[in-house]
Order: sequence, then C-alpha cells, then structure tokens
Amino acid sequence: MKYTLLLSGLLALLLFSNCAETASTPASPTDDATSQLTNQEHPIAIVLHGGAGAMKKELMSDSLEAAYLHVLDSALHVGYTILAEGGISIDAVTSVITILEDCPLFNAGKGAVFTNTEENELDASIMDGNTRNAGAVAGVKRIKNPILLAKSVMLNSEHVLLAGEGAENFAVSQGFQLMDPAYFRVESRLQSLRKVKEADKKQVNTHYDERLKASKFGTVGCVALDKTGNIVAGTSTGGMTNKKFGRIGDAPIIGAGTYANSKTCGVSSTGWGEYFIRGVVAYDISALIEYKSLSLAEAAQLVIHEKVPALGGDGGVIALDAKGNISMEFNTEGMFLACQNSAGMKEVKIFH
Amino acid sequence: MKYTLLLSGLLALLLFSNCAETASTPASPTDDATSQLTNQEHPIAIVLHGGAGAMKKELMSDSLEAAYLHVLDSALHVGYTILAEGGISIDAVTSVITILEDCPLFNAGKGAVFTNTEENELDASIMDGNTRNAGAVAGVKRIKNPILLAKSVMLNSEHVLLAGEGAENFAVSQGFQLMDPAYFRVESRLQSLRKVKEADKKQVNTHYDERLKASKFGTVGCVALDKTGNIVAGTSTGGMTNKKFGRIGDAPIIGAGTYANSKTCGVSSTGWGEYFIRGVVAYDISALIEYKSLSLAEAAQLVIHEKVPALGGDGGVIALDAKGNISMEFNTEGMFLACQNSAGMKEVKIFH
Repeated sequence: MKYTLLLSGLLALLLFSNCAETASTPASPTDDATSQLTNQEHPIAIVLHGGAGAMKKELMSDSLEAAYLHVLDSALHVGYTILAEGGISIDAVTSVITILEDCPLFNAGKGAVFTNTEENELDASIMDGNTRNAGAVAGVKRIKNPILLAKSVMLNSEHVLLAGEGAENFAVSQGFQLMDPAYFRVESRLQSLRKVKEADKKQVNTHYDERLKASKFGTVGCVALDKTGNIVAGTSTGGMTNKKFGRIGDAPIIGAGTYANSKTCGVSSTGWGEYFIRGVVAYDISALIEYKSLSLAEAAQLVIHEKVPALGGDGGVIALDAKGNISMEFNTEGMFLACQNSAGMKEVKIFH
Repeated sequence: MKYTLLLSGLLALLLFSNCAETASTPASPTDDATSQLTNQEHPIAIVLHGGAGAMKKELMSDSLEAAYLHVLDSALHVGYTILAEGGISIDAVTSVITILEDCPLFNAGKGAVFTNTEENELDASIMDGNTRNAGAVAGVKRIKNPILLAKSVMLNSEHVLLAGEGAENFAVSQGFQLMDPAYFRVESRLQSLRKVKEADKKQVNTHYDERLKASKFGTVGCVALDKTGNIVAGTSTGGMTNKKFGRIGDAPIIGAGTYANSKTCGVSSTGWGEYFIRGVVAYDISALIEYKSLSLAEAAQLVIHEKVPALGGDGGVIALDAKGNISMEFNTEGMFLACQNSAGMKEVKIFH
C-alpha cells in the first residue's frame, strides 16, 4: 500500500504541474470575479464534476488529492469568471470541460480509460437550454476536445448525434485537427485495463475491486447559468475501462447524460451509464420540476437516491436551475465536485 | 406520373408477394385469435407503425397501397395471435418488427434507405416495461433483423447501446449470422439517394420535394401489452436517405425513439429523429402520464401536436397503456398504422 501511495504521489505531482498549467492560462483571481457580481441582478451559477465512484480517502495520497482539488478549483475559476464578466454559459461550459479533458486525472479527453482493444474512445454531449438544441459525439478516437466537437455538431449541423469515423469526418469538415491516438494514452489507465483483463481471465468479480470500480467512473461535466438566464449543460467521458462491442454509455445521450431547459434546469450525469439511459436520468429531473413542481433539490434527490438505485444503478448528477440553485447528488462513496453562484455559494470538494 | 405509377405498381406486386410470404408463415385466422380473447380478464393490445411522412394518396398507386395494407394486416395478425394465445409481449413485438424489417416496403432491415456513401446502416431498440431493461444497436450493416440483435443486447449483455462493428462482433458472439450487405439493397432506395445527391449538387431544397421528404421516414415500430400486463416497445430503422458523418437518429435512443414502463405506457416514435431526441419524446409521454396524471391520449397529443412542433420537428408515435388503450398520433400528412386490442378495437390503415 505504501508503495502504491508513493507511486500515486509521484504521478500526482507530475499531473499536478500539467493540469495546473492548462487550468491557469485563462484565469484571473477568484475574488475579483466574485466582487464583480455583488451588483448583478440576474443570478449566475456554475457547477462541475469530475466523476462519481468509490474514491476512498485511503486509496488517494495527499498529493493526488491536492492535484484534483487544484484542477477543480482552477476550472471553476475559469468558468465562473466567464459568467461574471458577462460571457455566455456555452462558453463557460466548454471552457471548463476543455480543462478537465486536457487533464490526465479525469476519464475524458487525455486520460480516458482504455477499451478492451487498448484504444481510447471518447463521447461527449452538450445542450442549450434556451433553444433546446443539442450536439453529441460517440466513439471518437482522434478529437482532442470532444466537447468542442459536440458544440460544433449542435451549432453547425442539422444533426444531434454523430458516431465513430463519421463524426471525425465531420470534425475535419469543421476545421478540427485529428490527433495521433497516442496523445490520449496515459500509462496508469493502460495498467488499469490490463488488471481488469487479467482479473477477467481469472474470473475474479472485478465489480468488488474498489480501485477498478473507481476506474469505471471519472466522466466530467459542467452546467452553467449566465446573466441572460440561459442554462447550458455538457458532459464528456472516455466511458468504461475494458468496454467492448462499440458500447455507448449515457454521456452522449441527450436526456440521459445531459439535458438543459432554461425554464427548468440543466443536468450532467456520471455513473453506471446503462442505468442512467434506462432511467432517462437527466430529463427525468427536468420533468419532475416541470410536471410535479418539485424543487431542483427534491427532483435530483428523488432520482439519484430512489429511482436510479431501484433500477440497480449508481452514480451522481450535478444540476442547477434558473434561480441559480445548485444540486450535487450521488449515491456512490464519493464525487469530484466544484460549484459557485452569485448568491455566495462556493465549494470545491472531493466527497469521500 | 402515369409511368411512375405503372412502375410502382409493378414493384408493389413484386413486393406484395415477397412480404406476404414472410408475413403469412406464423399466422392463423384473426377470428380465432379474437374469439379466444372474449373471456380474458387481462386486456391485451398491440399497435404497430411503418413510419410517418408525406405519403400522399396521389403519389401511391392502388396496388402499392394494397401491398402496404396487406403487410400491415399480416404483421398485426401475427403479433395479436401471439398475445391472444398467451405469448409474451417481447415475442409479439420482435415478431412484428421482424416481418416489417424483412419487407422491402419499409425503411428498416431490407429496404433501408441509403447513406451518402451508398451503404445501409441500421438502428434498432427495444425496452421491457416490467424491468425497464433495454437494448439497442446503431449503425450495423450486416444484421438481417436489427430488432433481434437489440433484444439480445437487452437480454444477454450488461449494456444498453452497442454501435457499428462492435455491435456486429457482439452479434457474432451471440450466434447471429452476418449478411452480405447486398441483401439490404433495394434499387428504388438507391435511386432515391441518387436523386437527393443530384438535387444537393443543384442546390435544390430537397425538403420540399414530397417524394424525397417521404423517403426520410419509414421507420417501423411496435408496442404490445400481454396477458401478464407487461408492455414492450421496439423500433427499427434505416435512418435518413443520404445520411452522413455516422449520424444516429432517435430510433436506437431509449427515451427518444423507444420507451416502455408497464405502469405508464409503451411508445415507439417515427419522424425527424433530431427533434425527437431533443424532445425526449417517448419518455416525455410516460412522464406526462406518471407526473401529471394525463391520459395516454392527452399525453401523446400534447407531445406530438404541441411540443414537437414547437421545437420545429415532425413525425408521429404509437403508444399503448396498461389498460390496453391505444394512441396513434402524427403531425405529418400520413402514417402507416395497424392496431388491435381485446376491447374490440381493430384498425389497419394508411392515413393520408
């Protein structure tokens, strides 16, 4: 265990410097952003996550925890500053998710988990709450920031969901550069895959290996409310370690992984994707608010603590409503979270 | 026009004999099935569709119309007989959809429309209303009956949605035979594609060409309620003519194209898929029943005649509830429909 902690500590320091660099580029001091807001009439709010799962305190070194908190805080700062300076929520969401995709600590973009065939297959989606327009991509292998491609599908195509090589061809038509797939490779993720495959061979039930279970999660997402009252939600993931058969989870599915309606709420999900698809989780929270007049908190709690577990699934959601209320609910042991609103709420936390 | 009618008449006669043969195999007389039901306590019901769109009377020869009606009736008979004899709704739904997939008249299985690269890419999904388990496949090119593969994903995997070659690899692992892609090729569909591409070159707005607009639709689907009270819904399609970039529509998306919950309803959608995804159409009908206490008819009408058009989309749904009530709503000019329940309702119709 000591050896593992030492290794993860060294890894964390390396990642820390990488992620910090990425995250700090467009940032300015948080206090400035907050002070600019005190006179705003329209509330603004942002919430982001880096996945839910079994991230137990004892499996994480102090330096790794510090690295996670630093990136979450940096990403939050970037997103909130955009909103505080009058920027639109689509820019806040894509900027935050781009930072998390670029950081190898999270299972999205660089750092994505490996499929059974030792590839990284990326999914992402985004939805605009005013227009309820949406864009999503599934199974792309050469797009540095899948959330930006999802945005391009939303804004520059008549489609919602593009998959595989076709999605990459669309990306090229939109001026995206295709990456060498080696860019996404993070050694520790590859080792996780090989452990899972080894365990599969020995017919060990990998579901009960805490470290492997944690590696199933790590999707990232962000929901933002801007000064115009528009809510945008986005989600990005590398999916499940050892995924086979072209499996698509909930992250690129509008209504399951991502949903936004400026009249109700915006939601980004993370967890065991199959259950989130079957439960139509993201839209269900919106429907409970619209049709049953539940508050955002009541709706998110009902879905995550009763409806998803009743199906057999686990995971969490981040959500916010038009008033800037923020909800972060999960039925797993932990979740990487950060949020801030103009009413004075601010949190950056790894819930253990 | 006369020449077109003559050609389509000849085609219809050819298809008629093909489809009739497929459809009649597992059938027995309808009257028998109905009479078996008179003493049933639990209602049974089935509804199926062959797509919604601009199927104007003047664009369809009498013989083509007869061919459509014959297949719709045959498929209905097969499905209803299964339910009447105490079979389960999953068997009724897959049997009906298999017949429609095998018939080249419909845009699913054999007869699927062509993609921009002159291929047939098939999508399907199925959901079980008791367990709310679900299975779906997207972008498969060599599966004769995608609905059966979707069923296999639901019953024999821990996944919900598999795409592309991965889905075909799963199929092989489940004992499915891969077809030569030439099996799916129907000459008239290829000509439709080439017309669309020609029009695109000339920058004609193909949206207003009635025949091409009709070719966008033609998805098939079925919802059934069996004697145990279980509702199952399924959908299968070849997608849009001239589709590019690995586009995935609503048919394989649980919550958009297909949804079933035995406590509320089962739904299969058809139409302009992007709007059905954004509107989370199939689940929305269930949510309106569950959360707002709307009747099946009220919920389906609200979604199809108000909510989908408000987004800018068109299409239709078939739906039924646990009491055996049936709803068929569309905001297009027509829809291929058939339904029967143990309360004595029976319709086989092309609505113009």
